Parts: sequence; C-alpha cells; structure tokens
Amino acid sequence: MEAKTVKVRVPGTSANLGPGFDTLGIACSCYNELELTLFRDDRLEIEIYGEGAEKIPKTSRNIVWRSIQRVLRRVGCDDEYKGARIVMNNQVPLSRGLGSSATAIVGGIKAANEALGNPLKNRDLLKIATDIEGHPDNVAPAIFGGMTISTVRNGWPETFRFIPKLRFRMVVVVPDFFLPTKAAREVLPDKVDRADAILNIGSTAMMIAAFIKGSRRFLRNAFDDALHQPYRAELIPGMYDVFEAARRERALGAFLSGAGPCLMALANGNEVKVAEAMQQVLKNNHVESTYMILDIDKQGACVIE
Amino acid sequence: MEAKTVKVRVPGTSANLGPGFDTLGIACSCYNELELTLFRDDRLEIEIYGEGAEKIPKTSRNIVWRSIQRVLRRVGCDDEYKGARIVMNNQVPLSRGLGSSATAIVGGIKAANEALGNPLKNRDLLKIATDIEGHPDNVAPAIFGGMTISTVRNGWPETFRFIPKLRFRMVVVVPDFFLPTKAAREVLPDKVDRADAILNIGSTAMMIAAFIKGSRRFLRNAFDDALHQPYRAELIPGMYDVFEAARRERALGAFLSGAGPCLMALANGNEVKVAEAMQQVLKNNHVESTYMILDIDKQGACVIE
Repeated sequence: MEAKTVKVRVPGTSANLGPGFDTLGIACSCYNELELTLFRDDRLEIEIYGEGAEKIPKTSRNIVWRSIQRVLRRVGCDDEYKGARIVMNNQVPLSRGLGSSATAIVGGIKAANEALGNPLKNRDLLKIATDIEGHPDNVAPAIFGGMTISTVRNGWPETFRFIPKLRFRMVVVVPDFFLPTKAAREVLPDKVDRADAILNIGSTAMMIAAFIKGSRRFLRNAFDDALHQPYRAELIPGMYDVFEAARRERALGAFLSGAGPCLMALANGNEVKVAEAMQQVLKNNHVESTYMILDIDKQGACVIE
Repeated sequence: MEAKTVKVRVPGTSANLGPGFDTLGIACSCYNELELTLFRDDRLEIEIYGEGAEKIPKTSRNIVWRSIQRVLRRVGCDDEYKGARIVMNNQVPLSRGLGSSATAIVGGIKAANEALGNPLKNRDLLKIATDIEGHPDNVAPAIFGGMTISTVRNGWPETFRFIPKLRFRMVVVVPDFFLPTKAAREVLPDKVDRADAILNIGSTAMMIAAFIKGSRRFLRNAFDDALHQPYRAELIPGMYDVFEAARRERALGAFLSGAGPCLMALANGNEVKVAEAMQQVLKNNHVESTYMILDIDKQGACVIE
C-alpha cells in the first residue's frame, strides 16, 4: 500500500530567552509547512519554496529527509519505504536564531509519523528530534507549542510545557547576516564564574514565576544573563544598545534569539515602535534588518491536511 | 515617651532547595519568638530560652541587638533609644541550616520597626536584613513567608514570593553536629563548568514550574544540583544515600537545607517513614540525629502581641 500524502505545519521557535540558556524555548506564529509522500522505491524529490529555498540541500543530505529516515528506522519501516516526495514552504528565516533546523527536523518526524499512522507519541518525537538536533530547547517548543522548560539527563529529554499568563507579543528583528550556531557556541567558555551561574538561576526562576503567574512586577531583572549573551555580543554589533532601545519603548525585556543573530523583544503594546527603535540602533551600527511581530504559537507541530 | 513592648514571631527557613543555589527559600513552621522593649538609656538586657540559649552572645555583639540598631539608625532614632530588653524564645536549631541567623536578624528589625510605629515597609526590611546577612535567600522567606525567589543586583535584593500549589510537608533531619556556613562555603570552587550551570538552570526552572502549577510530573529531575551539594557531600557523611533513602520512601525529593548540615525531604504522606529512613542512613554513617516534620509557614514575620 502506498502511504498517503500528509501535510504538517511547524512553528519557528526562540531558545534561551536570555537567562534560560539551553533550557527555555517559545513557539512563534511563523511557520514552515511540509508536504510528505513516502515512496516504496528510492526516488527522492525535494521542492523548497520561501526562506532558504536556494541554500537548503535537495539531496539525501537534506535534514528533513534524514529525520524522516530516523522515524522509518525506528518503527521498522525503512525496508518498506525508501524514498519520498517532500515539498517545503518556509517562512522561518534560515540560520538566524529562530530554530529553522529544529522546524525542519520536527516537520520531518511529525509528517513521517502521521504518514505511518502515528505509531509514535509526542514524547518519542521529542527524544528522536533531540537526538538529531543535539539539544531539546528548540525542538521541544516546535513539537508542543507554548513555552517550554527542557532538561536532559543521560541523553533523555524532559519538557515542561505551559502557556504564559503574562500577555505579550514578540518583536523579532532579523539582521541581514547569517550566524552559524557553531560559531556562536565557539565564543563561549567551558568554565564560568559561580556568581554568573547564580545570576542566571535567579533570573530564570523570576522569569518562569512571572510568566506562569502573569505578574510583570518581577520581570525587571528577569532578562539578565551572564552565561552566553556577554560573549556573543561581539558577534552582533550594538546588541546591548538594541536591548536598551527596546526597553526605552516600554518592551518588557529583550534578548538574543537562540544563538542569534535575531534579536527579540517582548512587548505588550507599542510593538512597531519597539521594532523601529531596535532597527535604528542596528542601522547606526551599519547592520540592515527586517522585522516581524509574532504571537505565541500554542499548538506546536500539527497536521493540516 | 517610652516605646511599648512588642512581641514578634519569625519562621525558620530553608535555602537553596537543591538547584536554586543562593536563590530559592522556603519558610517553615518552626519559630523563634522575640520580645523587645526599647530603652532611652543604654541598658542592654538579653534573655535567651530554647535553642542556642548558652551559645548566643548576650552582649552588644548579639545579632538581634545589632539588627535593632540598624533600624534605629536608619529611621534616625538612634539618639532617642540607646538600649533594650530582648527576650528570645528559640525553636529554630542554631547553625544547622535552618536560617537561625536570618530569623534573629528579621526578628530584630521587625520588632524594632513595630516598636517605632512601622516607619519601614517590608521592602526596606528586606534590604536591611540582606545587608546584614549578606544574601537574601533566608531573610526573604523569614520576612514574607511561603516560597521565595530572590535575586540581588548591585546590592539591591528583589523577592518574588508565592505559595506552592504542590502539596507537601517538610521532613527535616537534624544531625547532631554544627556546620558553620563559612566552612560550607569554603569547599565551593569559584569557577564551575558551564554544563553544571545549565543543569541547575534547568532543574530550578522545572522546580518553580512544578511548585507553582502544582504538577508533580516534572519533579523527577527538578532536585538535581551540580553547583553546591556535590562539594558539600564530603562534610555530611552519607548525604546522597540519605536523599536516596527518602526517595525510596516516596519523598518527592530531598536536599541539603541551606549550607547544612540539616537534610530536608519534601513528602506528601509517609513523613515519619521518610524521616526514620533518613535517620537510619545517618546512623549507619555514625551520625546521630533528631527530626522535625514541618509545614510551610505562609505568614512570615509577624507581630503576635
């Protein structure tokens, strides 16, 4: 029996949210769509439209296809299905810190699972996606939607997912340069001051409490981070000035999205002014940019056809 | 006018709760009572009953008296009142990791503030108490009750206080030896692995979310800590085995209370068995102990007469 064609939609995501390094994530209303038809023979047809259409490989190295193969192997169907037709419609900017690779991975495994009749639970998808991506902080919100807290112990990811009571929209400023995650990780030291670790523990705890309880009162220091942004600032001209500009326009706080270069502010009203103020600072630093105003995606990866 | 006599009650507290190093705190239903009469002359009369009665200095070095003096100076009454009669009735074990010094400090400033007609808000009391104690993680729950998340920026403490939805009682096992906080801090390295910092960020975030939402599901790894307990284990014989024994009796989790040596487990039912199992492991390690089963104190420091 030929597998049916399935279509899934996966949100872009932002990881870290400032202090929650390698832990916090949020799903955004910016989506990649993926259509999948599994083939019994080894034909591989990949079509890509939208963001990254020219840059993403259309060969067997394609990350969506490799993710699909993981699911096929996991459920013992890799002898049955050897090829696929994959059509991607991408809104999520590539390599900008909005989880484009997590979106591709989750799209592939979600679509493959659906095409095979859903043998795997979301929990299994989280494990497979984390294994491929190397860490759960983007794949978790891509799968579950909302805001996520993720930890890994001995290779096994756990995710706590919730919808914040605090109201905000996400202002995302997209600088016109790529920043590979690898380069953004290489600037980080392996050892950190104990005091810096304590600062991030405190900020993260405040942030989680403020989001879950819906209280802005203790957000003031909740965006402080000493573990990754100070080192990555050198890679993004004017980064802290951009954050400051967002706060001057009454944003709740601002941070580097994932490993960057996207910069994100959370705002409740005044979003366009926040975006323009952030862009202006980048421009003063000779960086052109575009912006998006996004909401939390509450649904996560879902089948749309 | 002679100031009236006031009597306050202050809860003992536990700091850190495993991963929330120098950040999390909880107030416990174990109290010190303090009666204060301010004198215009410089007589100092100190009476102490209960825990630490023989060890606590009854001179001008007494921490309660020094805390009272801070308040007097702060509100400009140090010329008016130069002495005091202080009567302490202590339940909180001394130097065991249940915040006895924070209880004394908060007792002194709360009583002095009340005696002077409450010129200071709780927020001011938090600042003064933090300045005296050096960190807010015990004084915050002693003042506000409940569970607290505290941060410090440039010497200014912030506290988010909440009552956990998760139901539990606190099983506190008190080993029969003192462990000065100073000694327990000296074993800690100034630099830590980035991976260890990330582990604590993740555990703390999970713990806060689980407590606020009332969900036990993600508590499994929420007590994991890589920043202080691994180093302090050498000071408390069998510490990790005690935690394990508590979990075997279905405790939600266990940790070192503050800088120790008290060991605390959170349990929902089965508390006596948890306590006895923990004591037995200590005994196997040649350490005698007593235990207390406590609830969260929701009120914090309060005037009782």
